Amino acid sequence: MPLLDVRELQFVLQRFAADRNWEPLHTIKNLSMALAGEAGELVAIAQWMTDDEAGKAISADTDVRRQMSDELADGLIYLVRLADVCAVDLDRAVADKMQRNALKYPEPGNTPGH
Amino acid sequence: MPLLDVRELQFVLQRFAADRNWEPLHTIKNLSMALAGEAGELVAIAQWMTDDEAGKAISADTDVRRQMSDELADGLIYLVRLADVCAVDLDRAVADKMQRNALKYPEPGNTPGH
Amino acid sequence: MPLLDVRELQFVLQRFAADRNWEPLHTIKNLSMALAGEAGELVAIAQWMTDDEAGKAISADTDVRRQMSDELADGLIYLVRLADVCAVDLDRAVADKMQRNALKYPEPGNTPGH
Amino acid sequence: MPLLDVRELQFVLQRFAADRNWEPLHTIKNLSMALAGEAGELVAIAQWMTDDEAGKAISADTDVRRQMSDELADGLIYLVRLADVCAVDLDRAVADKMQRNALKYPEPGNTPGH
Repeated sequence: MPLLDVRELQFVLQRFAADRNWEPLHTIKNLSMALAGEAGELVAIAQWMTDDEAGKAISADTDVRRQMSDELADGLIYLVRLADVCAVDLDRAVADKMQRNALKYPEPGNTPGH
Repeated sequence: MPLLDVRELQFVLQRFAADRNWEPLHTIKNLSMALAGEAGELVAIAQWMTDDEAGKAISADTDVRRQMSDELADGLIYLVRLADVCAVDLDRAVADKMQRNALKYPEPGNTPGH
Repeated sequence: MPLLDVRELQFVLQRFAADRNWEPLHTIKNLSMALAGEAGELVAIAQWMTDDEAGKAISADTDVRRQMSDELADGLIYLVRLADVCAVDLDRAVADKMQRNALKYPEPGNTPGH
Repeated sequence: MPLLDVRELQFVLQRFAADRNWEPLHTIKNLSMALAGEAGELVAIAQWMTDDEAGKAISADTDVRRQMSDELADGLIYLVRLADVCAVDLDRAVADKMQRNALKYPEPGNTPGH
């Protein structure tokens, strides 16, 4: 079972860019900048809130929730488009990373050899 | 047809955090910071390259390619985990955003009313 | 009295770049990416700490303190270099911004007209 | 001769925060987030421009120039405030870093021992 499937979004983004002649703009540098820009907007949302305030604002149907939802969508759109331009298979990249994370951070009480 | 399906990754990340008692660390602020940190590492990859150099480095089987693949995976992992903690449905958030993008950036030659 | 004076650093950075033939690399896009990269490293420092833990780690003579000090320096270096390449006078830009901030956020008990 | 002097700005920012009771908000985590947010806005400015387009837009008296000037100011304000909260002496941190940079990137034709 794959961890994730973003192929339909990838295809929609390819067509969206092609229909608007945006392909020359979608370079690795430009898409990296766009993703960093979205991450910046996202990290600004809760910058003056406590964890409690952020949790409450986002669990209710507020502007803050809509803003977070929008920035997550924008971030994901640029991330998937950048991966496509780089010909990186995100499902495989994430699976590889999770395997290394499992070795790097073993579960407590589950130390290898014990 | 959904644009994307990240439910299996979402579930694996829930279990990974629970098994390591990381849930108290996975606040909205902390995960936003982690995502911004990964976007920063990603945008640094091609910072001194031209678009051509970045394209060549990433199309070959190089350290640069592996680094880009890793950072994309890390970014996606934190983005999916943050969306889960915020109870944001990424498929719906992205579909909403793409609909608004289609209105905001109409295709050339496809002006409404023609 | 100026709010800040970074002219000596600006001059040192000009010479540092010229001596290494780095001027063609120091474009607005590249330096923006470098600054975003440093901000990403900086925001990652305290991502899993509470405010208390971050305060304690940084007030002591620790690796965390040295890392924060280094990232602040790197960020400032790229910010001053980028401003120079853009021919932006940072002292004037900051003074303008502080004036607008004073209007936007009046002191409590100091409301205009009262 | 110091590389930079930001003491007056540092003092103005202290008073600005104290007058508005913002000191409890100005934690290391929150200011790191604010700085990353500004870096994100800054890196987004030139994301769809070529280097030439960015240079032209910013050398003229345009909205792009004003936006870049504003984001540089915001970034510097948060960077100086964060350094103050961390009790990091920016002049010394930058001087240390420039010394290490000079060793790490020796001038061409100026190799030690020749």
